[in-house]
Amino acid sequence: MLKLFYAVGSCALASHIALEEARAEYTTVRLDFGANEQRKPEYLEINPKGRVPALITDSGILTETPAILAYIAQVFPKADLAPLADPFAFARVQSFNSYLCSTAHVNHAHMMRGTRWADDPASIEDMKRKVPKNVGDSFALMESEMVEGPWVMGKSYTICDPYLFTLSRWLERDNVDIGRFPKINDQHKRMSERPAVKKVLAEWSRT
Amino acid sequence: MLKLFYAVGSCALASHIALEEARAEYTTVRLDFGANEQRKPEYLEINPKGRVPALITDSGILTETPAILAYIAQVFPKADLAPLADPFAFARVQSFNSYLCSTAHVNHAHMMRGTRWADDPASIEDMKRKVPKNVGDSFALMESEMVEGPWVMGKSYTICDPYLFTLSRWLERDNVDIGRFPKINDQHKRMSERPAVKKVLAEWSRT
Repeated sequence: MLKLFYAVGSCALASHIALEEARAEYTTVRLDFGANEQRKPEYLEINPKGRVPALITDSGILTETPAILAYIAQVFPKADLAPLADPFAFARVQSFNSYLCSTAHVNHAHMMRGTRWADDPASIEDMKRKVPKNVGDSFALMESEMVEGPWVMGKSYTICDPYLFTLSRWLERDNVDIGRFPKINDQHKRMSERPAVKKVLAEWSRT
Repeated sequence: MLKLFYAVGSCALASHIALEEARAEYTTVRLDFGANEQRKPEYLEINPKGRVPALITDSGILTETPAILAYIAQVFPKADLAPLADPFAFARVQSFNSYLCSTAHVNHAHMMRGTRWADDPASIEDMKRKVPKNVGDSFALMESEMVEGPWVMGKSYTICDPYLFTLSRWLERDNVDIGRFPKINDQHKRMSERPAVKKVLAEWSRT
């Protein structure tokens, strides 16, 4: 049985949606980042990075969103969440998810997590000021060069879609208007209407 | 025929080594970052991100190191560069490479590329001061929790190895002593002795 560790507001949303889309049997554990539960010894035994998501499988524990998403696509092939039989098409999926984790998410992280990379309060504020431009630039690049529409990879819904949806939800907090990106805005609206997404968001909004 | 775009000193080294280990037929194009060639219109048509690596294939263009590495492993299965038949083992490979691109590389990037995330020269200097600790912390975590030895994934050499080797080469510039990490130091030395690595580094050192 799969078990997903998540925190509300985190990028674990992408993996949670993918599990639901795959019709996987799984349970979830919510961590309270406000209480710093991700740094408690019992969780650090699961994920020494002190981050989410972490997915417990029968074979062992997995971390890092792109790896978990590709794993879900591979072990639930009937859900058709990635073009598994075509190495080039699969690599395009991976390339998009890699851009999200290494560039788009990192640009966003300088808003709330600047203390990872600097100590002076003035530096932290300086980073925050640049986040709307950086996040906006990475979404503009995705809009013009990567997102095909109606889904990220075109006609087929893939593991790129819940991941983009997750990061798009952070745009408002970063003072970036999603309306600037018509294809991404459209993808976001259609994601919001999917039963799997509604079910997961209902769990995340429970107090 | 595959064609790899790289710049000396960049993370494209990982993809270049993987192509060589796979005994792929490929050509290379070196970009001069000093002359800002990655921002010239003719290259932006290949990779609108203005970054390297970019790999031209018969099917289209790929970017992002983790995606390119997994693609090389998949299209050259005889080279046995990833556990392709085992989704969990493959996900562990991907998880490691995802950590490198989203955390370890990003920690390093604050040394030379701080202007991506802040504007004030004082902020840039503040970021630089924190790089040795952040890079050291991420390598300490890899040493204690991720790298099995003798190779990253244990007995089998995989696409994780050239990628770790690439980032380990930046430690000296970041004022981090590789000697603190015995398994990673040992992996680095054995990587340096591989014919594929020697051949690629000889090309990179040509002026």
